[in-house]
Amino acid sequence: MFFVPELIEKKRNGGKLSKDEIRFMIEGYVKGEIPDYQMAALLMAVYFRGMDEEEVTELTLSMARSGEMVDLSAIEGIKVDKHSSGGIADTTTLVLIPLAASVGVKVAKLSGRGLGHTGGTIDKLESIPGFKTELSKEEFIRIINQIGAAIAGQSKDLVPADKMLYALRDVTATVDSIPLIASSIMSKKIAGGADKIILDVKFGRGAFMKKYGDAVELAKTMVKIGNLAGKPTVAYVTDMDQPLGMAIGNALEIIEAAEVLKGKGHEDLLNLSLEFGAEMMALSGIENDRKRAKEKLNESIKSGKAIEKFKEIIKSQGGNPKVVEDYSLLPQARFREEVTAPHDGWIESIDALRLGLAAMKLGAGRQKKEDKIDHSVGIWLGGKVGDWVEKGKPLAVVYANDEGKLGWALEEVREAFRLSPEKVEKRKLIWARITAENVEEF
Amino acid sequence: MFFVPELIEKKRNGGKLSKDEIRFMIEGYVKGEIPDYQMAALLMAVYFRGMDEEEVTELTLSMARSGEMVDLSAIEGIKVDKHSSGGIADTTTLVLIPLAASVGVKVAKLSGRGLGHTGGTIDKLESIPGFKTELSKEEFIRIINQIGAAIAGQSKDLVPADKMLYALRDVTATVDSIPLIASSIMSKKIAGGADKIILDVKFGRGAFMKKYGDAVELAKTMVKIGNLAGKPTVAYVTDMDQPLGMAIGNALEIIEAAEVLKGKGHEDLLNLSLEFGAEMMALSGIENDRKRAKEKLNESIKSGKAIEKFKEIIKSQGGNPKVVEDYSLLPQARFREEVTAPHDGWIESIDALRLGLAAMKLGAGRQKKEDKIDHSVGIWLGGKVGDWVEKGKPLAVVYANDEGKLGWALEEVREAFRLSPEKVEKRKLIWARITAENVEEF
Repeated sequence: MFFVPELIEKKRNGGKLSKDEIRFMIEGYVKGEIPDYQMAALLMAVYFRGMDEEEVTELTLSMARSGEMVDLSAIEGIKVDKHSSGGIADTTTLVLIPLAASVGVKVAKLSGRGLGHTGGTIDKLESIPGFKTELSKEEFIRIINQIGAAIAGQSKDLVPADKMLYALRDVTATVDSIPLIASSIMSKKIAGGADKIILDVKFGRGAFMKKYGDAVELAKTMVKIGNLAGKPTVAYVTDMDQPLGMAIGNALEIIEAAEVLKGKGHEDLLNLSLEFGAEMMALSGIENDRKRAKEKLNESIKSGKAIEKFKEIIKSQGGNPKVVEDYSLLPQARFREEVTAPHDGWIESIDALRLGLAAMKLGAGRQKKEDKIDHSVGIWLGGKVGDWVEKGKPLAVVYANDEGKLGWALEEVREAFRLSPEKVEKRKLIWARITAENVEEF
Repeated sequence: MFFVPELIEKKRNGGKLSKDEIRFMIEGYVKGEIPDYQMAALLMAVYFRGMDEEEVTELTLSMARSGEMVDLSAIEGIKVDKHSSGGIADTTTLVLIPLAASVGVKVAKLSGRGLGHTGGTIDKLESIPGFKTELSKEEFIRIINQIGAAIAGQSKDLVPADKMLYALRDVTATVDSIPLIASSIMSKKIAGGADKIILDVKFGRGAFMKKYGDAVELAKTMVKIGNLAGKPTVAYVTDMDQPLGMAIGNALEIIEAAEVLKGKGHEDLLNLSLEFGAEMMALSGIENDRKRAKEKLNESIKSGKAIEKFKEIIKSQGGNPKVVEDYSLLPQARFREEVTAPHDGWIESIDALRLGLAAMKLGAGRQKKEDKIDHSVGIWLGGKVGDWVEKGKPLAVVYANDEGKLGWALEEVREAFRLSPEKVEKRKLIWARITAENVEEF
């Protein structure tokens, strides 16, 4: 037993909370024995004073243990989870699941729905007619052992401490604190049962972290937590100033994922998927040489194995695999209208956040938990930063089901693009790779 | 309407809250529209970021206006209130009320019971058989207009915001923040209806503020608030490392006050009372020359006017005025035992806090609101720092009603005194006088 005001005061004065003290706070909070107001004061003290690696690791573990701990031991081999801190047109997971599975990686993907500019991976997959994401544990494990991959919605009982703390942080201005963000993400990864973890920490206008330095800091903290918690973790810091892929929206991202898996996608999304795919192969012990791993992944795309694996996954979860050949089988928006370039020029910048918000307002994402997603709407880009566009050619295509929202979104999309008469360099995509041992900058 | 998390974030980031924003937070909190957890986060942000003079003044005024605002305009003349930040053997108010009234100052004293080592002024006066502190507004004003002074318990509806905030601060480690302490004290002074305010901010082991610098900071903040709120305010910073007077306890302090008013009290308590009395005379426009004011006050003591005024006050509130002549009419403790000096020496230090806690445990003060006070118990000192004591002579006398507590208190009192074989200087009592214009250090 501890006296809560003394623990708050200790942190407020810059002290270090012991493992027992942190566990006491989290367990007491989840049980309702420690009230919101004391937790809010502690969170604000943490905002100002931070936490060292041991504290944040214990916080993460205490949160992870607050609910169900998923047991994936019935799946043979090393299970690697990949997590993105969230961004616009971030279709990587949809590409990566079949791609990695096609070269022998075991992918047990548990995913939340959450809030955001578009739905989560689960929502995107539900664009596919028949696709079922509510699997029993037995089904989930059986499918992975059979075909190498499955995707399911995570249990509602996963990390209740995080749900409570996040709701409290959201209304007490204590969201943007690196130890609190890191523990929130990592508690879910650890409770999710994977053996090893790959993190994609994004920065820029379309990401939660606006600055590179903050993203590196967050990535380093999460890598430390993962490794101290016995889950080897590697993090990448990647650009999210402009959208990653070309598609923003649920069915649209299914299409883009299929295109990449067929070898016809945009290079950025492909390259990031190859990078993470190679990392997953290394962590799984399938191929330690990164260059050879990427060759194998490329080979899988060229040979058609990758897209076949996607169809196999769709089929095994009750979906119609023909969608990857005939995109008209996916939900279709009533309106489809282009935003064209007002003059010739190089694309200088694309405001990812603005496009994300536009897609959300079109119905592609949720503002509130209760919101329903419209799978058909979204935005498809005509180019990325550094691309040349001619006057009258499309900068983007907007897909909408509501004429009012369409008009508004067209304007937003127009505002999101800036053209330059002078040549513009393409943006660097992968900025850093962070392991327990070092920070490798690209 | 404001969005609460944005206001918390603004303060968290070091921004300045506007008057409207502060009012919105306090009004919303008192109405129950803003929950404890958001207020707790804001308080912690204030702890770290502070508040400037405008913010803390608006906070004070918003708190003051949260309940009844006492109207003393029916009392002729300038009403001056004196407030002490609290200490051990601080009998100043009991001396000052009759002393100032005896030279023509109007003293309208509203006082709370509160918690502490001894009771508040109200509790002390209730040691006197028959003394009534629950007066109607009309009685209160009539008595002051008649004899110049009255003392009443403050309305329960005085500054409800402070009661709520204090309870919250107490459990969220946000008590020791200068803007929060200053607004808590000043909101009650302002709602209390006085025209001008004298503050006695104590520092040292027996005070809330342990360090001189913090006490000066708090005093400056409160003087600024008072003056910005249109209530001219003067603050003194005084020593509370050792007890101020010789008596700690309720009836015992009545006795000491009577002794000082008869010209037979200890010099420290007398000097502080003369200092504040002169300040009250100046603020009331009765006598601007401090030296002459002190002469008049001394004259009032010598002539017997001061003790007569005390009797008049006691009588007008239903008490037996004979107590000031015959102390045996006051509640008597069953046990009375001396703590004697183990060897010759000068008193080097007296731990005020330790004595205060001992008196409280004897029953002189409240630990919890519901506790009943034993008016008869307490401690009477045999000397102060710098005094010479001979082996076997009393360092203090303990008054108790419980043999177990007596034994324990005797030990505590013994431990509180430190004797030195070498001569020890007397402690400086008044360290600084702080007005809107300047800080005068003594």
